[in-house]
Parts: sequence; structure tokens; C-alpha cells
Amino acid sequence: MRKLTLLLLACIGVFNIHAQNNEQRIEELLKKMTVEEKVAQLRSSFAANPKVNRAFFNDKKKIDSLFGNGISMINPDFDNSLEESINNRNKTQEYLRKTRLGIPAIFLDEAHHGLLAMKTDVFPTSIGLACSWDTLLTERIYNYVAAQAKSRGTTMVLSPVIDVTRDPRWGRTGETFGEDPYLCGLMGSAVVRGLQGGGVMATLKHFTGHGQSEGGVNQAPADFSERVLRTFHMEPFRLAIQRSSPAAIMPAYVEIDGIPAHANSWLLKDVLRKEWKYDGVLVSDWWAIDQLHNKHFVAKDKSTAALMAFNAGVTVDLPYGNNYEKLIALVKEGRINMKDLDEAVSYVLRLKFKMGLFEAKEIKLEEALAKINQPEGRELSRVAAERSMVLLKNQNNILPLPKGRYKKIAVIGPMAATNYTGDYSGVPVHNVSLLEGVKNKVGNTAEVLYAKGVDLSLNGDTYSLNNYQYTGRVKWPSRENNLRKIDSAVAVAQQSDIIICAVGENEQFSREAGNPDRFGDVSTLELLSDQNDLVKALIATGKPVIVYLAHGRPLCVNYIQEKASAIIDGWFSGQETGNAFANILFGDVNPSGKLTISVPRSVGQLPIYYNRKPSAHHFEYVSEKNTPLYPFGFGLSYNKYGYSNIQLRGNTVSVDVTNQGKLAGDEIVQLYVHQKVSSATRPVKELKNFQRISVQPGETKKVSFEIDANMLAYWNAKMQYLVEPGVFEIMIGPNSEELLKINYNYK
Amino acid sequence: MRKLTLLLLACIGVFNIHAQNNEQRIEELLKKMTVEEKVAQLRSSFAANPKVNRAFFNDKKKIDSLFGNGISMINPDFDNSLEESINNRNKTQEYLRKTRLGIPAIFLDEAHHGLLAMKTDVFPTSIGLACSWDTLLTERIYNYVAAQAKSRGTTMVLSPVIDVTRDPRWGRTGETFGEDPYLCGLMGSAVVRGLQGGGVMATLKHFTGHGQSEGGVNQAPADFSERVLRTFHMEPFRLAIQRSSPAAIMPAYVEIDGIPAHANSWLLKDVLRKEWKYDGVLVSDWWAIDQLHNKHFVAKDKSTAALMAFNAGVTVDLPYGNNYEKLIALVKEGRINMKDLDEAVSYVLRLKFKMGLFEAKEIKLEEALAKINQPEGRELSRVAAERSMVLLKNQNNILPLPKGRYKKIAVIGPMAATNYTGDYSGVPVHNVSLLEGVKNKVGNTAEVLYAKGVDLSLNGDTYSLNNYQYTGRVKWPSRENNLRKIDSAVAVAQQSDIIICAVGENEQFSREAGNPDRFGDVSTLELLSDQNDLVKALIATGKPVIVYLAHGRPLCVNYIQEKASAIIDGWFSGQETGNAFANILFGDVNPSGKLTISVPRSVGQLPIYYNRKPSAHHFEYVSEKNTPLYPFGFGLSYNKYGYSNIQLRGNTVSVDVTNQGKLAGDEIVQLYVHQKVSSATRPVKELKNFQRISVQPGETKKVSFEIDANMLAYWNAKMQYLVEPGVFEIMIGPNSEELLKINYNYK
Repeated sequence: MRKLTLLLLACIGVFNIHAQNNEQRIEELLKKMTVEEKVAQLRSSFAANPKVNRAFFNDKKKIDSLFGNGISMINPDFDNSLEESINNRNKTQEYLRKTRLGIPAIFLDEAHHGLLAMKTDVFPTSIGLACSWDTLLTERIYNYVAAQAKSRGTTMVLSPVIDVTRDPRWGRTGETFGEDPYLCGLMGSAVVRGLQGGGVMATLKHFTGHGQSEGGVNQAPADFSERVLRTFHMEPFRLAIQRSSPAAIMPAYVEIDGIPAHANSWLLKDVLRKEWKYDGVLVSDWWAIDQLHNKHFVAKDKSTAALMAFNAGVTVDLPYGNNYEKLIALVKEGRINMKDLDEAVSYVLRLKFKMGLFEAKEIKLEEALAKINQPEGRELSRVAAERSMVLLKNQNNILPLPKGRYKKIAVIGPMAATNYTGDYSGVPVHNVSLLEGVKNKVGNTAEVLYAKGVDLSLNGDTYSLNNYQYTGRVKWPSRENNLRKIDSAVAVAQQSDIIICAVGENEQFSREAGNPDRFGDVSTLELLSDQNDLVKALIATGKPVIVYLAHGRPLCVNYIQEKASAIIDGWFSGQETGNAFANILFGDVNPSGKLTISVPRSVGQLPIYYNRKPSAHHFEYVSEKNTPLYPFGFGLSYNKYGYSNIQLRGNTVSVDVTNQGKLAGDEIVQLYVHQKVSSATRPVKELKNFQRISVQPGETKKVSFEIDANMLAYWNAKMQYLVEPGVFEIMIGPNSEELLKINYNYK
Repeated sequence: MRKLTLLLLACIGVFNIHAQNNEQRIEELLKKMTVEEKVAQLRSSFAANPKVNRAFFNDKKKIDSLFGNGISMINPDFDNSLEESINNRNKTQEYLRKTRLGIPAIFLDEAHHGLLAMKTDVFPTSIGLACSWDTLLTERIYNYVAAQAKSRGTTMVLSPVIDVTRDPRWGRTGETFGEDPYLCGLMGSAVVRGLQGGGVMATLKHFTGHGQSEGGVNQAPADFSERVLRTFHMEPFRLAIQRSSPAAIMPAYVEIDGIPAHANSWLLKDVLRKEWKYDGVLVSDWWAIDQLHNKHFVAKDKSTAALMAFNAGVTVDLPYGNNYEKLIALVKEGRINMKDLDEAVSYVLRLKFKMGLFEAKEIKLEEALAKINQPEGRELSRVAAERSMVLLKNQNNILPLPKGRYKKIAVIGPMAATNYTGDYSGVPVHNVSLLEGVKNKVGNTAEVLYAKGVDLSLNGDTYSLNNYQYTGRVKWPSRENNLRKIDSAVAVAQQSDIIICAVGENEQFSREAGNPDRFGDVSTLELLSDQNDLVKALIATGKPVIVYLAHGRPLCVNYIQEKASAIIDGWFSGQETGNAFANILFGDVNPSGKLTISVPRSVGQLPIYYNRKPSAHHFEYVSEKNTPLYPFGFGLSYNKYGYSNIQLRGNTVSVDVTNQGKLAGDEIVQLYVHQKVSSATRPVKELKNFQRISVQPGETKKVSFEIDANMLAYWNAKMQYLVEPGVFEIMIGPNSEELLKINYNYK
């Protein structure tokens, strides 16, 4: 896979050859453009949908009024069939090429875990994929996604989400890579490299603090101090910009210190443009400029909102550009000067030239069709799921199940027969549930029984073909309804030799809260809708219960941890969930995933994350511990890996990792750093490197890491980013709690 | 009471007459002092306790080594008898007067809700007292406290706590006046005026952010943005300094933006000294300077910690001055210059001169004894409790109970026979429980039955004579133990006509978490230790249940709100709790208290406070509302007050308040302000004034407020504190939710 990476990096390099040429073309274009044409390059538009499609493209007045001056970007086309979508895109581009300047549009899509469209390959959601700690695999997946997207004409996606999640009540937790800034930065970089190496531009989002919004409520304030923002919430962006040159960045909906990110020139100009020299496009989050006047109330109308966002540095107004329409008047009134307008437009034109849009050909339906439901996509998705699933418990090594031992296997629970794929999901051609995966695996060597166990909700409990389908409030099943279903499940369980119980969250419980009638944030992290009762009833049968968790955010599964025989945490693991699970269940794959977010014991412990300050969670609670249920970095294997012999030679620290088990396996070796005394407080530990290694039974591998300034630097008491001389503890181990330590002196 | 206030203000004025004279005396003293003598004025010492007392004062070597160079302050003397305490203080002062310079010591005490000592009057804790919204009563109480303290030789107290609480998991929530910065500032000012008017110096604490520490954990980081700190957490301090000239301020344990408050020169020098021109003493919190090297790890040892705290502006090192001992060497090594040392010492000397310590006479035991258990103290405490208790529910106007109607009254619950007085409590001579209060009231007109109902803990469930008594972990009663007790309670309840059920928190559940073996913060706001089961069992009897809540923090009493006939919230209401409760129960007092902190529906809603930003709690949770169970400012009366006719004339806004009931009563009329559009985001509403008025049945009172710049100003987008022109909604009503509105234009 190493070769692939180098190749991709080379692809990125190609852009710069044309850079000088492009600047000339931009200058020439700008000279020709009217104010209206310039502003059009900062606005976006809906994607024509089936209802207006034919009429729209035949209605010259309509199309002229919308696209006559050109358009910057066209929104995702979620609801259309592949054929309609390609047709619309071709017609749009065809029209634009015939406008006065002939500037083509960028076609946007979402691609959180695969392309969000019909008939695409669906991969594990980020919170799961992150548990693989496998940046190379991630890059390869997104390279594949790019090919699928490109074949449909997509030129840019609004991915990856690299927010650091410190409040799992947030419905978008599953879209993130977890709580660690370094890991989020590295996984995010891998996504960008994968996408852009495949010719589709990427967007880092959401800059910044979105993952620790007040009360875990989507879009709520992130009014933290500058050092918190820089050390944790900005850090993934800094890393990803350095490592992957993303085409675009999207500011967050949130306010920071009372200034919404979309009006925050410190954030977008001082930090992004001046400090970090970032020269990509800044695209607004959907309606976030509108929110300046209708949610945050820092602007009195669209025009003021447009002026504030423009002055703060936002390049393009999504999704409709209704605010930036006002820029025309603002320029003509002299409230925005032409130089600033030209600069903004040049970011967009530069991107269009870089992407080769001016030379792009028609999108071919047959090429898109050829990318659908291919073995490579299914394989990649399965491997990703296998490397992502986390074994949380394995009492008496009940797993892997010996093939053929259990003759009757009950697969029970609301996640058993329905494979939820999570928010922002495309629709795969084939979606493998746990039930199907287990059946596939055992063939006719065992009987597989099924019961649903409980309903999670009465209006959203089936797999959604469109993640915006369930917009109403959750209609909760009655207690009686669920108790009846639990009884039926117990009856099924009684007939079996072993029980697989799949519980978690459906799509209504864990998604982006988006309007007053569509919720996704929670105030409890307990299993909802009587699922704990289902588990208790199954445990009470006395038969072994293997619990599988399918969900978007950490859940407080204290009872399950105490009573179940084994737990496999799959998050939302994509279209091959069932096959990956079956491979792990029966030992064809040795589980290797490790959690990238701390799992609290209760919602009342929040925020709880491993890289806390020394004074955070310093005291226990009256009736609860101050440690999480599962710490960051935790995950078991069917093997045990011994860590020993930590050594420091110069700037190289090494440790010996021994596979003490009987199976080959992958281990994720983690390195944390802590400075003992510093002028500003520092976290008790911070992840600064890791390696995913393969170890044979009995084999010992020496794992080495180079200590460099990047690992040690921080924002000191004077707000300088540097390494402060002193003693650093270098810690290496299998998770954030079980660590070997050695001191490193930096003078 | 108005006269009293003016008198107190006059007393404060007296100090300034001597100011010039004092400056001369300070200058002369500083000329004579050695470095050791100077540093001694920045150090503090333990109060001799019974065990070392006699030996200590007879051991010349020991006393010389500790006090030979003088001493700044002597710590509280919690554990001694009154006689021992006075004796020790006199002996200490006698010794100090005979030292070379004869500088007397300041005797410190705690006085959170009455003097923390034996045989004192105990008042409602601040979170309860605040519910009276009665600043004049508060001033009078603390004037009384000052007299009691002064009679024992106390010259300064480490009160009031004016932290804004935004996380009720915090064990010190009950020590605060709630969540509103304006109300905290006004109540704090009243305390300071009361104390200092009575000749005892006051200390504002804790500067700042202590009330929103991470995870609700005591002393954890408060890493919020500057605008959050200034608008909410600093504001009570700014107001109290303006309105009451407190002698001292104590920085918080917490770190702010990675810099612990005790090492934070922005906080203590830039804001307090330079911006606010504050010229009092800055005393460290206990061991907070030590924490710079053993908790926050920003200093490598005591000497560095001392240097950091000194440079940040901390004047005195409490409780032992072990860090500031190192200042001697630091000055001698030239790392601190003499001018800075002299400035610090002058703050202390100025205070000692102001307080007249040099001329103070011996403390007389008989004067102290004459202040014990006086009718005035009991009366003040009862009135405070009566005005503080909040009626949360009164279904079908079941309250007040007609005298004589109920012949058998059951008083049940862990709070029924034991009157907990909360953390930081003195020990009253007589402490009236609910059971005693009800018995007192009904005399022989009814039979009063009792059952405990549940044990809260096995090792801390009796009234504590010393709030530091229960230092171990909570020993939880078994479920069986409590179910047995619930059965007994139900048997008692069955015999009665009506049930009073008192539940809440004992002192182990709600107090300052102080060391690894003494917890006080919680991760759940539910009633602990089977109390909900007790309530359910009592409700199940079908008899009317009046619930009384005794507690230090808001509790999520959803079930009680749904099922109980009535709820009276008393917090920890002081030594007269039982009598005050009985007066309200039977209608001799009409309840008038209003909540000063939002009560969440569950811990998962935190933080939830009324003065949220527009984008906070904007979406509901999947399975819970985004509103609190009871909003800020809420409280019922036996009357109903009608609000009508909001009017604006010039800068005067008025509203008519009509007593629509049959009883005279007090109503707390609240004024909130909201700016419709502003350059930085502003809260949806902010309390800016209030009046506690008395209204006769059928009477309508016109209540007027002046709108001034103080009500409208805020920290704008450029971090300037000013009024930004625009439209302001002026809202008046009985609580933060039910408000009449009128627009006010500021140009």
C-alpha cells in the first residue's frame, strides 16, 4: 500500500506545474468579468431535481436568471437517480460553457463514509473507521470513493469532518474520528490525500470547536479559551493542512467567544490565512451565513450578514448564495472594494483551473455504471469493518466461536436484521446485516434463529434509503409493545445454544440535528427504548450472550460490560457489517480495533476525555468513579500482546511487543507524551504517534519512534508555540491507560 | 431597614478619614522592617488547637520561630471551644504586640451562612438565601454575623462566595447565590456591606470561573473565552467591588486558559488592579499556591510557585505560607525587588490600620457569650428561611393546610428529624427540624407521626457538629435496608391523614470535594439512596403528599413534580428551618421565594441556564426537552399576581402588579433585557433589576424601573464595554419565562 500513497502524493504535485499559467488565466478572466459575474462565482445553487428538471433546462428565462452570470458550485443531488443526476450535471455544464465567460461549475457532494448517493459503496462511519487507526487503508478507501464520485461528475466533496468530539451527546459524534486532535488530523489527512489523489477535491470541516458545543447540542456555542481551541480543536486542521493541502475548508456553525465562526475574522483570516498561509476556498456551511441574522442575531439582514461573512473571509455562500447575492449592491455602494472581491473570486477560479474543469469532458453514464457494486468496493468496505470493530470484552476467551460447535445460534435485537449505516450515508446496492453475515458464514452447519426483541421507534426503525427521510419526532413504542417483543425474543433464545444480541442506535437517535423537527442530540447515553431490558432478559436465560453494538456515539453499557460474555463494538460499520462481524465471530479475522473516544460510565461524567488537564476529573464523584468505562485507545484481541523493554537511545524510543497468543494479529502501538512541568498547564498525556503492526504468534517486534519537536511543542504561557525545555515522560502501550514510561530530557 | 443600610454605608466611609494618616504609618513601618518581617506579613499560620495550645504558648522557641517576625493572618479556629479560641487569640495578639514592630494579626474565619464556629447562629445557605432576592435582609443578617464574629475576635472572614454556578454537579453549588451574575453581585455586595459595616472585613471569592469547572468537578479547569469570563464569571466581582469595597479577594483554584488563577497576572493584575483599580488584599485559597507545583504542575517547587503567585499579584499565602516563606530568599537573590515586596506588604498593613487592629483591645469572653443564642439571631434566621423557601407546586391549592383539619400528620424522610444545615456551617445552639417545627406549630391539636424512610448513608447520616467530620467514602445502605425502612414508613403513613415527605441531600452528598477521600461533586442529579422509591411508596398510599426538599444543589425531581400534591423547596434553610416551614405549611407565612438557579430535567441537559446564547439549547434532545424542569426566577405563592400594562415613558418602564389572591404577600418582580441585534452574540435575556414588593389582596401596585446604560452595556465584538445602539426588549414578569415585553430604542 505504501506505493499507492507515493503515487497519490505525486498526483497532488501535478497541480503546481500549472500554477503560474493559472494565475495568468485568472487575471485575464477577472479583467473581463462584471461585478455580477464575479459575485456569481461566490454563490451556489440547488441541483435541479426530477420535478423541475426538464422544465428548468427548457425554460430559458429561468436558467438565465439563475446561471446567466455563471455559478460557483452546484449542491449535492441526493434525491435523483444516477441517470437524472448525470443528465442534470451535463446539461448544467453545457449551459455554463455557453455563457459569456464559459466558467464551469463545481459539482458538490457529501462523502462522509462513501459517496452520499444512490448505489454507492458504504464504508464504516468515521468514528468506526478511526478505530482501525489505519491511515493507509483510509487513504485507499477515499481514493476509491473519489473514483466513484468522479465517474458521476462530482468535482468536490464536503468531507472530511475532522472535529474533535468532546461531547458525545452531539448527534454528529459518529461523523468524527473521535476525541484526539492528532488522530483526527492524521485520519483527516488520509481522507484528503485519498480524495484529491483521485481527482476529487476535499473540504475540511468544521472550523472549529463544533465537537464540543454547549450541552452537546448541534451548532451551540463553543466559547472556549484560545489555548483550548488551538491545542485541541484547531490542531487537526493545522495538521491536515500541512499534510494534505485540502482544497477547501468549511467554518463551523458555532460561535467562538461570542463571534460566530462565519463572521470570525480572527479564526478565518488571522489564523487560517495569515498564520497558516492557507490559500484554498472557504465555503460556508449550509445556511450558516443566514444564521448570522436569524440564529446568532449579529446581523440585521441578509446584506449585513453577507458583508460580515465576506469581511471575515468566507469565500462561497452555500447552499443558495442568497446572502452573497447582496454582495453586488455592497460592491456597487463601495462598501466592499473590488480588490477584495477579486481576491475572493480568484480562490474559486484557481480551484476550477487546478481541477481542470475548463477542459473537463462530458460525464458518461456508462463509466458511472461501471463503478457500481464492484468487488473492490465490497472488499475494501469489509476489510475496513474488520479492522475497525473493537473487541471490548471476551470473558474466558469465549470468542472466537469454534466453527461447528453451536448448532443453534440466535441473532436477536433491533440491529440484527437491519444494518443501519449511519448519518450522511449513501445507499449501497447490497447491505449485509448481522443476520445475513452469520447465515452466510455458518451455511448449513448451524441453524440461525432471529427475533427483533424491541422496537426502537415506530416511525424510523427500518433502514433508510435517504438519511433525511425520518424528519418527524421519534414515535416511541409503548412499554407493553416492547415487553411483548422481549418475551418472543426470549422464547427464540431459549431454543438456541448461544445468543448474539445486537443493540444500539437507529438513525433517528444519532444524526445531525437540523431543524426544530429533526433531532439527533441526546441527553442520555443509556440504551434507549427498553434495549437494556432485552439484554437483561437474554442474560437471564443463562445462555452465553455475545453483544454487538451498532451506534454512532459512545453508549454507557455498564450492565452489558458486567454481564455479557463478550462485546464487539462495530459502530456503524458499512455495507459489509454482517460479513466482517461473522469473520471476527468465528476467528477468520482477529479483531484489532481500538477506541478513539472515551466511553463514559454515565452522561453525568461529561466531558471525559483522556487528554485532560491535571486538575480535570481530579476528584471522584460522590456515587461514581472519575474514570471512563473504556479508556481511549482500548481494544482487545484474541491474542495478548506483551509490552516490555522500553528504551531511549538518543531521540529514538523503542519498545518490544510480543504476541503471546496463538493467532497472528495486528496490534496498534500507541505513544503518548507528557511534560512534567510547563509554564502553562498541559494534558496528563497526549497521543503523538502510533503504529499498526502485524505480529506472528510468539514473535517479538521492536517498535521504534523518533522523538521530534512536533511531539513536544505546545502553546506556552506567553502563547508561543514552541518546545519548552524540561522533562518529558514518553509513554508507550496498548491503550491510554496501560503504559510503559521513560523520561526524555529536552534542553 | 433603609435607615440601617445608610448607617452601614456611613460606617464604611469612616475608614477613609484616616487614610492619609495610615499611609504615613505604613511608610514608616516599611522603613524599619527587615525582609523577614515583611515576608511575615504575607504569610499566615494555623490557629493553635487544644492539643498544642498550652505547650505552644509556653514554648518560647516554638512561638518565636513561628511568630517572631510577626504574621499576617491566623486561620480559622474551627475545632476549639469558644473559650479556648478566645484565649488563643488573645495570647497570640499579646505575643505579637511585644515583637519588635508590634504588628497585630488578622484573625480569619469562614462565614458562609453564619459564622463557622461553635454556638453560632446558622442562616440559610446562599443558594437558599438568594431565593429571597432580599438584599436588605441579607445585609442585616451579615451585619448580625459580623457582631457575633467580632465578639470572638474575628477581624476578617473568607466570605462571600459570589461564583456564578453553571454546573450544579459541583458540590459547592449551595455556597453560591445561583446562576445570575447580577444577582450574585448584588447579594454579594449586601453581604460585604453587612459584614464590613459591622466591623468585620469581607473576602470575595473565588476569582473566577469556579462555578463552571469542567465536569462539575471542584477545582477543575474553567477554560472559557474572555467574553464568557467577563460577561458571566467576573461580573459579580465587578459589581461587588463597585458597590461594597470588599477588603479582600480570593482567586479561584481553577485554571483559566491553561494558567491557574493564582499564577494568572492577566486576571489579578491587568483586570483587578489596573482595569478595576482594586486596592484590597488578594489572599490565596488554601494550598492553592502549593497546587501550582503539585496539582497544576506549572512550577517545579515551592519557591517557583511562590515567585509565580507573587508576580501574578497574590498578596497572602494561605493557610500556612509555606510557599511565601521562600520569598525571603527570592528577595535576597534579587529575583523579587524590594519595591514590589513593599507594595504587597502595604496592602496588608493598610488593611490592619483600616481595621484599627493596632488599637484593638483584648477579646472579652463575656461579650462573646452575650452574643450567643439571642432572640435576634433566631428571628433573623427564621425570617430568612421564610422568605427563601420556594413553593414549586401547589395542586388544587392544597396549601396552606387549614389549621385543625388534619388530625394525624406523618412527617417522613431522612430530612424530617435531622435538620442538615449544609457545608461550611457553624453549630447552632438549637437546630429546629421539620418534625420539631410541625410539632411546635400543631401543639396538641394534631398527632405528629414520624419515620425516617431510608438511610442516605451509613456513615454520615446524622447532623454533623463539624462539617469536616465525614471524611471517608460514603458507605451506601443496602437496597434491602432501605426497602425495610420504606415499609415501616408506609405503615406510619397509612395511619395518617396527610404526609409530609422530606427528601434531598445529606452533607456527604453536597459539599466541597477537598481531597481524594472526601467527595462532594455528583454525576447524577437524581435523588440518591432509594429516596425516589420512598416517595413512590408514599404516593401509592393515595394520601396527599407534601414534599419538602432539603439540599445544596438543584435536583431532578421529575417524578415528584408529576405526582406530589405540593412541593416546598427549602435548600438548607438554617437553624430555624422547622419553624419557618411550619409557618408556611399552615399559612402563617405566604411563600415568596423564587429560584436563582435553573433546575434541569436531567444531568444530561447541563449546562442549562436561562441567560443562554441564542444558539445554545436551540434544538431539543432526541428523548428530552431543551427546557429546564423549573426555570430561573420561578416560585409560586398562595396568591396569584397578575402582570399587566407594561409601559415605557422616557427611560422609565413600569408594569402593574395585582394581587389576585386573598392573602397579603410579597412578590419578586423581575426585569430582563435583550438586545435584538448586536455585533457579538448576546444572551436571549439577562436579569438587570428586580424589586421585592408587598401587595395586599386586591391591590395593584405600579412597579417602575429606570433603564440606564448599566443595564444595556456589554462586551462588543471589539471587546469594548459599551452600549451598542439598537433595539432592546425590556421584559418584566414573575420569572424568567412569563414576561411582558416592550421595545426600547437606544440611539
